[in-house]
Amino acid sequence: MERDSRGILAVHRDEFAYEAAALRSRWDDLPLLCVGMVGSRRGWREIPYVTTPASLESLALGAIWVEQNSVAITPGVSHVVSDRCDVMRGEEVQFLGAVAAGLAPAERLLCQPGTHSKWARVQAAQILDFSTAMTGELYSLLRQHSLLAETLEGEAAIGAPFHNGVREGCKQTLLSSLFGARAAQLLDALPAGDGASFVSGLLIASDVQSQLRGVSEDVYVIGDAPLGPLYAAAIEALGGRPHMVDSAAAFVAGISKMWQVLA
Amino acid sequence: MERDSRGILAVHRDEFAYEAAALRSRWDDLPLLCVGMVGSRRGWREIPYVTTPASLESLALGAIWVEQNSVAITPGVSHVVSDRCDVMRGEEVQFLGAVAAGLAPAERLLCQPGTHSKWARVQAAQILDFSTAMTGELYSLLRQHSLLAETLEGEAAIGAPFHNGVREGCKQTLLSSLFGARAAQLLDALPAGDGASFVSGLLIASDVQSQLRGVSEDVYVIGDAPLGPLYAAAIEALGGRPHMVDSAAAFVAGISKMWQVLA
Repeated sequence: MERDSRGILAVHRDEFAYEAAALRSRWDDLPLLCVGMVGSRRGWREIPYVTTPASLESLALGAIWVEQNSVAITPGVSHVVSDRCDVMRGEEVQFLGAVAAGLAPAERLLCQPGTHSKWARVQAAQILDFSTAMTGELYSLLRQHSLLAETLEGEAAIGAPFHNGVREGCKQTLLSSLFGARAAQLLDALPAGDGASFVSGLLIASDVQSQLRGVSEDVYVIGDAPLGPLYAAAIEALGGRPHMVDSAAAFVAGISKMWQVLA
Repeated sequence: MERDSRGILAVHRDEFAYEAAALRSRWDDLPLLCVGMVGSRRGWREIPYVTTPASLESLALGAIWVEQNSVAITPGVSHVVSDRCDVMRGEEVQFLGAVAAGLAPAERLLCQPGTHSKWARVQAAQILDFSTAMTGELYSLLRQHSLLAETLEGEAAIGAPFHNGVREGCKQTLLSSLFGARAAQLLDALPAGDGASFVSGLLIASDVQSQLRGVSEDVYVIGDAPLGPLYAAAIEALGGRPHMVDSAAAFVAGISKMWQVLA
């Protein structure tokens, strides 16, 4: 297994074929099935989305061979209802892979925390509905460029400040709660080292709160540390029941199943 | 009257005395009463906040002469309740000045849209409670640094896209609604020129919604174009009754009253 941290912007549009060939040469020229942003407008080739309900089968059938018999790219998923649109590219493999591998039930709410956190409702091994929140991106913007930059030094961790943030996030007054964190620091009501945990709790709870339905809802969290455990803590604090899912195992199960359909 | 756009960061800490002397020399060396960020930790001298309930009298009595008989700085206002802190420096003059000048009733909800929008509840010419939202700063962060930058080109204006954003903002699912704007553009459901108005409506409605109480609440909006009318439109769409207040007149009334107390 290979893994690196290079994202879509690390590869120029003209260099995907070269990158794919280099990768295959390290793996006995096995065929390559690509998922995620490589199929977006900024990627190698734009592959049209499949719509919800989406399954591993419909995704595999929507794949396009960009190099005959050697390299294919799968589509992402779009969701359009009367007044709401959403898209994903890549996360669908983990969501449906988790179900295929038996790591999550075939009918449940699943969550993938991240720069853009994804929430999916699956039923009968199909993604019926999903929603993306800019939670991680907003945290990063606030940390780098905002009035809160100084308040957000250090790393977020589970503890009293995080849970205070979770409680504040439940009020669903995000825009004023964020300023409140700065004011609390100016008035010495929020110690300097606690700001990152407080605001992290605030943003994550705001995200979680708008997704949970009903009492004691089970949520399958596909995510690594540190974000996975932070989401699990917020879900639990808001009355949900979090279950951690191994994201690598979910991915492998999902992409293997798509390959079986495609090959 | 003089007015310029230089903010707190345009003047170095050691240069306030020089700036004040230059200003006074253009005005026959009249005494100077300073309000706002000049009294903050980053300003000329930090002037302790007065707490709510705050009146023009309590603000004037909290002023500190930084140059004997010639230059004084007034405090800002802090608000601390069990689980919430807030601060302002400067906006209190317009809020209480609007009431002093009869531009707003002595018991009402007032709003000052801006980078940090301020909402105050006044009663008997005192600020009882107030709340600050990062609405304008967040819009600017999204525009400059986020995935939505491309979606937010152009200027926000009142119209159908703005009102669609207002409806979306009422759902209080801000983090996912923001991503939804990007998804809608990718799926050609939101024309390129409409993004700024939609997201502006979304953020402003999210702010307004968390402040309005009861049916047909009157809100006195102290703000110039373009933000004042956008807030008024959102307040009206959400069932409130907006009334526009001239911010310059409110400011002059407020600072004049403080000077009468102080002199």
